[in-house]
Amino acid sequence: MQRFAWSLWLSVVVPLRFKTAAELWKVHKCTQCIMLIQNYGTLCSPHGDAHHNSSSIDFCLAAVYVSDAQFNRNIFFDTSPQAVSLYLLYNHWAMQMIVYVFIFVDLALALFEDPAVIPMPIWGTSLVEMICLIVFTARLFHYAKVIPRIRFWKDPKNICIIVIILLSLIDIIIYGSLKSTGYNAVRWSRVLRPLLLVNVTEGRQLRRAFRSIRNALPQILYVFFLFMFSMLLFSLMALKLFGKRNLFTVDGEPYFTNFLDIVFDLYVLVTTANSPDVMMPAYNYNSFFALFFILYILINTYIFMSVFLAVVYNNYKKHLKEEVRQLVKSKRQKMLRAFAVLQQPGSGEELVVSQENWNQLVHLVQPDISNAHRELLWSISDDCNKSHIGKLAFVQLPDLLNIQVITMKSRPHPLHIWFPLLYDSSVSRLLRHAVKHKAFVYIYDLIILVNAIFIGLDEENPLIAYAEWAFLALYLLEILLKLYTWEPRAFFAKHQFWNWFDSVIIVAALVGAIVNLCIKSSDGYTSRQILDIVLILRVLRLIRVVDSIKRFRTIINTLIKIGPTILTFGQLILVVYYIFAMVGMELFKEKVKYLEADSTDPYKDSCGTPLLRGTTFAKNNYCKNNFNNVVSSFILLLELTVVNQWHDILSASAVSHVSARLFFVFFHIVVVIIIINIFVAFILEAFFVEYTVEKSDLQTSLEKKIEELELSVDNEHDNNLVDDMETNENDMGPSENAKGKPSLMFKIASKRYKTVDGLLQRMFEADLSLEDADDMDDPNFSNITFDSV
Amino acid sequence: MQRFAWSLWLSVVVPLRFKTAAELWKVHKCTQCIMLIQNYGTLCSPHGDAHHNSSSIDFCLAAVYVSDAQFNRNIFFDTSPQAVSLYLLYNHWAMQMIVYVFIFVDLALALFEDPAVIPMPIWGTSLVEMICLIVFTARLFHYAKVIPRIRFWKDPKNICIIVIILLSLIDIIIYGSLKSTGYNAVRWSRVLRPLLLVNVTEGRQLRRAFRSIRNALPQILYVFFLFMFSMLLFSLMALKLFGKRNLFTVDGEPYFTNFLDIVFDLYVLVTTANSPDVMMPAYNYNSFFALFFILYILINTYIFMSVFLAVVYNNYKKHLKEEVRQLVKSKRQKMLRAFAVLQQPGSGEELVVSQENWNQLVHLVQPDISNAHRELLWSISDDCNKSHIGKLAFVQLPDLLNIQVITMKSRPHPLHIWFPLLYDSSVSRLLRHAVKHKAFVYIYDLIILVNAIFIGLDEENPLIAYAEWAFLALYLLEILLKLYTWEPRAFFAKHQFWNWFDSVIIVAALVGAIVNLCIKSSDGYTSRQILDIVLILRVLRLIRVVDSIKRFRTIINTLIKIGPTILTFGQLILVVYYIFAMVGMELFKEKVKYLEADSTDPYKDSCGTPLLRGTTFAKNNYCKNNFNNVVSSFILLLELTVVNQWHDILSASAVSHVSARLFFVFFHIVVVIIIINIFVAFILEAFFVEYTVEKSDLQTSLEKKIEELELSVDNEHDNNLVDDMETNENDMGPSENAKGKPSLMFKIASKRYKTVDGLLQRMFEADLSLEDADDMDDPNFSNITFDSV
Repeated sequence: MQRFAWSLWLSVVVPLRFKTAAELWKVHKCTQCIMLIQNYGTLCSPHGDAHHNSSSIDFCLAAVYVSDAQFNRNIFFDTSPQAVSLYLLYNHWAMQMIVYVFIFVDLALALFEDPAVIPMPIWGTSLVEMICLIVFTARLFHYAKVIPRIRFWKDPKNICIIVIILLSLIDIIIYGSLKSTGYNAVRWSRVLRPLLLVNVTEGRQLRRAFRSIRNALPQILYVFFLFMFSMLLFSLMALKLFGKRNLFTVDGEPYFTNFLDIVFDLYVLVTTANSPDVMMPAYNYNSFFALFFILYILINTYIFMSVFLAVVYNNYKKHLKEEVRQLVKSKRQKMLRAFAVLQQPGSGEELVVSQENWNQLVHLVQPDISNAHRELLWSISDDCNKSHIGKLAFVQLPDLLNIQVITMKSRPHPLHIWFPLLYDSSVSRLLRHAVKHKAFVYIYDLIILVNAIFIGLDEENPLIAYAEWAFLALYLLEILLKLYTWEPRAFFAKHQFWNWFDSVIIVAALVGAIVNLCIKSSDGYTSRQILDIVLILRVLRLIRVVDSIKRFRTIINTLIKIGPTILTFGQLILVVYYIFAMVGMELFKEKVKYLEADSTDPYKDSCGTPLLRGTTFAKNNYCKNNFNNVVSSFILLLELTVVNQWHDILSASAVSHVSARLFFVFFHIVVVIIIINIFVAFILEAFFVEYTVEKSDLQTSLEKKIEELELSVDNEHDNNLVDDMETNENDMGPSENAKGKPSLMFKIASKRYKTVDGLLQRMFEADLSLEDADDMDDPNFSNITFDSV
Repeated sequence: MQRFAWSLWLSVVVPLRFKTAAELWKVHKCTQCIMLIQNYGTLCSPHGDAHHNSSSIDFCLAAVYVSDAQFNRNIFFDTSPQAVSLYLLYNHWAMQMIVYVFIFVDLALALFEDPAVIPMPIWGTSLVEMICLIVFTARLFHYAKVIPRIRFWKDPKNICIIVIILLSLIDIIIYGSLKSTGYNAVRWSRVLRPLLLVNVTEGRQLRRAFRSIRNALPQILYVFFLFMFSMLLFSLMALKLFGKRNLFTVDGEPYFTNFLDIVFDLYVLVTTANSPDVMMPAYNYNSFFALFFILYILINTYIFMSVFLAVVYNNYKKHLKEEVRQLVKSKRQKMLRAFAVLQQPGSGEELVVSQENWNQLVHLVQPDISNAHRELLWSISDDCNKSHIGKLAFVQLPDLLNIQVITMKSRPHPLHIWFPLLYDSSVSRLLRHAVKHKAFVYIYDLIILVNAIFIGLDEENPLIAYAEWAFLALYLLEILLKLYTWEPRAFFAKHQFWNWFDSVIIVAALVGAIVNLCIKSSDGYTSRQILDIVLILRVLRLIRVVDSIKRFRTIINTLIKIGPTILTFGQLILVVYYIFAMVGMELFKEKVKYLEADSTDPYKDSCGTPLLRGTTFAKNNYCKNNFNNVVSSFILLLELTVVNQWHDILSASAVSHVSARLFFVFFHIVVVIIIINIFVAFILEAFFVEYTVEKSDLQTSLEKKIEELELSVDNEHDNNLVDDMETNENDMGPSENAKGKPSLMFKIASKRYKTVDGLLQRMFEADLSLEDADDMDDPNFSNITFDSV
């Protein structure tokens, strides 16, 4: 198996380019480590008496623990050298990437399977799916080698993956044989595919989200039952009040005569989708009846829906807090294990880790960290300059590593090196001063606004077309001027989001415009696609204005910060949508057809079916809202999430299938009542955290240290260009500084979190800090830790 | 002026019956107090040396301070005896009631003014309005006599009322004279009427809500501008992408060609009202264009709307917290003033209030409090049995008074007194035991469920009609059995909500059914109105099931608890709706007509105007959604608040008025984005408080004391009937108890707040407690207090 994994690694990972030199170095170091373990494995196993003279293998093991703690991985791997080396490979980014690529290939198969967007033969899709399944099996096999056998079989997510793989295999065989003999068959195992995303080792965030939902369910259910009870009472009242009055709806159907129809109508009213319509017949009959609906909307739409949000929010927060506490606990456990591996007897009874060992460990965990940065971290850990640290300080290491410290080097401008006289001339100085001036920003904001007006005007007017070139030239000039003023590598540093944004947009617009011009001049007509892209790029350019208004920037920054977690919700939504899309496609495919305008179908105006003739659905041209393939299913489900008109969309499916109502209502409950509320809850929480929580303790101590050492960047004097600057390179460039500042400076990117867990931990920091202290003193806790090593 | 106020008091208040004997006593005591002040006013003014021998006037003044502190009144009244007596009158509940009655009469005038629901001549409405204005002026005059002249003119709410009264007068005169000479005129001053609700002295809650909104506005505005910016960018992109593609909407109009129309359409899309419709032409043209709308909805509907909620919630909470802190501060100030009036030198340097004085004060502040209850409160204040209390303990008094302590007296059943042998017979005992058994509740829950099914069936079936009588009899039997088992006065105690609910519903249903039967047997046909009422009562009966399921009860209890504050929001909504309704009526009245089915109008099918022929508005029978009178205006505004189809409703007004869009969008921003979000925020906060905050310190100390004295009601043994029991009477009935328990028992109604401020204070308690302690030790603060007395 190990050989297989190695060959897989060699054949798949190596051809992929390594991200950076640092990454390459890390892999190299890890390989070295593995070699070492393989050669001296039995000799220096961590079970032996290796506490005093830490060997390379110990460092490797400790590094794995630290990096697990840093990224909150909770895998109880074997501590045998072979397992550790396999574990290192298992956690390699390329391996994780492969798994995700194959999961998405597997999910994307729905595009090609019947009902397909792009039809493919059954053997083709089956073959691809088989390959995917083999990859998943291999990954699982790899995992089984890493962790103890008993733990493997106790873990429900492994069992889940095995069951999914087996069921998919069975389904492929049944479906293939039935289809080849001409029978109809259902690809039921497709519903299981998105569950892979949840059960894969890397799906921690997603699993946590699902767990939170599951834990919140009982509370939600009680409110839901009360809500249903209120709805049923109102329905009964509506039946008694309106059923005997011989009223008719706009479509001429009897109004509120059937109890189940009333229940459904009132459920739709809760979503406000049929808001005035359902009331109008009663209101037209007697104005007083409006009271009934007002009361209903007040109680069920406003109060109950708010209560749902409150319950979902509260439970979600509560359970998430519990989960994060567990996370912090297990992080500490891992760090204590790492400490146990590297510990040496210090002065007195205390066990300590020496600075030398610590340096080596950090070097192994994060090879791309600069020496200065590492020394800074050490000086925080070792407050008293004893050149060794105790357990408490050591445990902080992953948190310290997770704080993004920006190492800034003041480097001279290349033009300054090449043409010092010219670059330092008074004209050049004036120019650079002008570019740095606030007025420069304002002028360009004004240009953008004028440009917005020009974009709004008709672009076929030749004058406007010429003006567009002028604007492009102005934007290019801006970038060149900025590059002239600031050091290019600093300008295009990793996290200089707006600089990158500007440059990419402008260059793309330039390329697009030139391509467009070429096509136009050669063929004589404009390519619509390229023109579309050029137009979109033009509009996107205007976003830049946001950056120059401080208040806007803070809101945008908060939004960007919660971006990664919104991605977790994206996955959550994907899983739910995919399952509903698969079920929906099997139930409702081809019930409604979208026919082009030139179709000769006799039911062209009613979506290809006589059943829909004259319905709102057909009248509103909704025919494309169907379950005929994955893409339109997803768009349809999105429309249902937005809620409006969902009863009309439903009606189309309902004409052929009575179960449609159940399907649609269930979707509404799951997505709108539960998931969207959790989404809102999360955004609320994230904003509150931004508004209230200050920097964490560790960050402030780090900042204090930086200030002590007079290495901090003065925020007053540096504009926002420097503000966001980050360079992670290791090498030390030639240092030179006019103002006498140190050439190397640090700044804490306090507003950014490396991991989503970091954000979550910060959310509940206030509540956790006290309990954390308790954990540290808990003797049982420590014992468990040391026993297990 | 004083004589005027007195005669007003005599002529208006006295004819109104006094609520309870306690209330009567209070008024009597106050009048006595006033007499005293009038007779010896100059002699015993609180400015004199009255600190050692507290006179009645001092008590009166102290009582006013305490009661102000208890109800959070912030009126800086003159401390002269005359002013105090006037102030007592000013705060009398009947006076406040009169003001509110006249405000609602003033507001209700819109029903009779053109465009009227029930037309009335102009002189009639003008006369009523004049009377209202006179009452407001009198009230303001009264207020001016109570507080110092300078304070009166510095208070913006007084200026506001004066301006409103003057403008209303001017408007009446102008309108009357213009109308009488045949010109057209606009009643513009009607917009100002609801502002009276805000500016009246009693509108504290409402003013606070408006202040919170005003303070949150800047933050909301920044997010709103960013949101608008994003919307404009998307609109520009839509114009460029779709404008040149010759697409058409379902109605055959060009699709996305006019920039302003696009902006409006996309604004409507944020509210999801035109959700799939606006997307369909682009989606039908090319599936990829759906991406544009998905992105738009994700960013603007989901993310921005959540951000709005977050910002509104956060700012509202922050400012409310500040307001409540001010409230607590001024409450303490008032108590310190009261203390200064009653203080005596105690042992050492400390100034104290003796138990005797304290008793007299409490008696004056809350005459309906029982002696036992008062002693209980004293024993909490005076921890060390020193028979006098210091400043710190004294200041707690209003909080203590605000805690609802339920005094329970075990009283024998009247039947037990009248027929002791019969009532204590074994059959009677068994019966009472059976009624108290859980199975009794379950049996009646089952009966209710069966009844629900019967209600759902057709009531014209004679069998069902007879069954209905059987159910009525069963319910009556239940009430009688319960009355037999429990003491009737306890059963119908003030806060026995469910007992009252049951009895009222059943008796009403019985009366309705009998009346219905009589009419039917005499006239031979059924009165629809009475039948409606009977049917509604039948359905309402089913609500009782909620009470027997514990989880439901807790949710309902939380909802009931936040009820009073929802009323504040009701007033807020009323003010905003009224203003918009008035403006809307002037702008859009008679543009759209609702015509009965037998009308001969040629444009009957298009709401009486050729402009609406063939529009969705006319097709959907929306004609009654118009601004032709106050009632339909309010219902229309409610429909706009629910949001769905609001663009269709708007279109009807827009055909005649271009400004309609502005009006409707402005309404949407004010009501949906700001007020509804605050409403949601409040419900969220209230639920979170319920989930997390435990009883406040004072309540627990009170509970401890009750337990110490062995006076607490044992929750285990008493079922929920006793659980909610409360009697406030003063007299001590004959005590008798079988189990040897004390005949008088206390229980804290911890789940109820006497005032909305109490709930708010509890909300922010955790944050306030520390700062409160600071206030107490602040010497400056005390000085200010003593100086001002």
